[in-house]
Amino acid sequence: MSRTEVPVLSLTDARRRRADRARQVADMLRRRLHVGVLPGEPELVREFGTSRNTVRDALDLLRAEGLIERLPGVGTVVVGRKYAHGLDHLLGLAETLHSHGEVTNELRATGLITAPPAITARLRLPDGEPVVYIERLRRLAGSPLSLDLTYLVRDVGEPLLREDLAHNDVFVLIERLTGTRLGTADLTVEAVNADQHSAAVLEAAPNSALLMVERLTHLADGRPVDLEYIRFRGDRLAMRGTARRDPAEEAGA
Amino acid sequence: MSRTEVPVLSLTDARRRRADRARQVADMLRRRLHVGVLPGEPELVREFGTSRNTVRDALDLLRAEGLIERLPGVGTVVVGRKYAHGLDHLLGLAETLHSHGEVTNELRATGLITAPPAITARLRLPDGEPVVYIERLRRLAGSPLSLDLTYLVRDVGEPLLREDLAHNDVFVLIERLTGTRLGTADLTVEAVNADQHSAAVLEAAPNSALLMVERLTHLADGRPVDLEYIRFRGDRLAMRGTARRDPAEEAGA
Repeated sequence: MSRTEVPVLSLTDARRRRADRARQVADMLRRRLHVGVLPGEPELVREFGTSRNTVRDALDLLRAEGLIERLPGVGTVVVGRKYAHGLDHLLGLAETLHSHGEVTNELRATGLITAPPAITARLRLPDGEPVVYIERLRRLAGSPLSLDLTYLVRDVGEPLLREDLAHNDVFVLIERLTGTRLGTADLTVEAVNADQHSAAVLEAAPNSALLMVERLTHLADGRPVDLEYIRFRGDRLAMRGTARRDPAEEAGA
Repeated sequence: MSRTEVPVLSLTDARRRRADRARQVADMLRRRLHVGVLPGEPELVREFGTSRNTVRDALDLLRAEGLIERLPGVGTVVVGRKYAHGLDHLLGLAETLHSHGEVTNELRATGLITAPPAITARLRLPDGEPVVYIERLRRLAGSPLSLDLTYLVRDVGEPLLREDLAHNDVFVLIERLTGTRLGTADLTVEAVNADQHSAAVLEAAPNSALLMVERLTHLADGRPVDLEYIRFRGDRLAMRGTARRDPAEEAGA
């Protein structure tokens, strides 16, 4: 007991279940994987002041998430490097990841559709107004990263269909073709299990966790023009951002 | 073909695979579940201008995510209402969800630990400095919502251990006890599959998708004091926020 009568725990504390200790160590290691390196087991045992069993259990948890692999004769290697995508700064995927490899887009469907009210209401269009639909499987350096379902207001979307959508972000094309800067986007971020078909398209394990993002993007003048439903592979992408206790004061930060 | 030679698609388009159409409809319905209502199948067929098969497939996808259930003689009901947690505005869980029910916290572990460098480095503490560890299972109206692993700098954390942590947000207690306002928090948001033990603690299905949040919170003066690893049940919580194309201009928005 410390002088303040606070109980002292440790990562080897027998009162804590082995699984609880392993989770704790796995979470501390998780961030390390974002930068792509991982020390050996003896170093981890020393660093975390814990048992070899707890370190192994923690590595097992990260391996089950597809982030690391144990290679015979080599040790533990990071195989599932996660890339960070901005929660605050509105950027296209190629804009964000340009230093990590080429983003290419496989066009799975493009065309005009008569959108249901669920779409037209968000885009502030009259019921039954046609919108442009674009469905893309997006890859980074050849490997699937996300499956994007995009609905665009017609005047913005139609010119896009004549552009090279396989090699350009929709955001960049919208700004180039409209001569207008994008403004803000409303995001909803969820974790969902991949259905069988989405998993197959994304070349992900059945049932694997996806980061699902709904994003409504406005032009700088506030008009909503682009509604997207994006499924990111959970093992390949994380989102990063900043929250503020007093949002009104953000200007002074 | 329209006059602009843009191909016309529809939600019943035979060129599109049935699974692709179902995903499209499921995504449009997803937002509807956040508000807790869902029309019957005939209404959905009419609204989306699609076949009954596509509507049923879409509902199957949402049912597999644990969001809806088909009850004999009743129809489809929303069982997995998702609550929204702010990505921009830094609020505790009880502060955010107070209108939806009482947040209670089951304390799974509390005490001082000798933190590894992975923790002390983030909290800008010397190596080997003790930190306060708090592990909580958080419930909304009795049902598990998240499992939180919290590391606090000692001067902020120790006084907290003498407070009613079962019924108060850590954020609120920190501000009350330090007399200081919180400032900003750095967030990383990921989707991960629940390991067996985390799933059991959260009373979630094995392997179910969790929204995993790492959050480093600073006092208003910029000092990092609170590092958390939070596993939210993916079927119960979504995060909402706003991204800006030109972050430097946010003050003028």
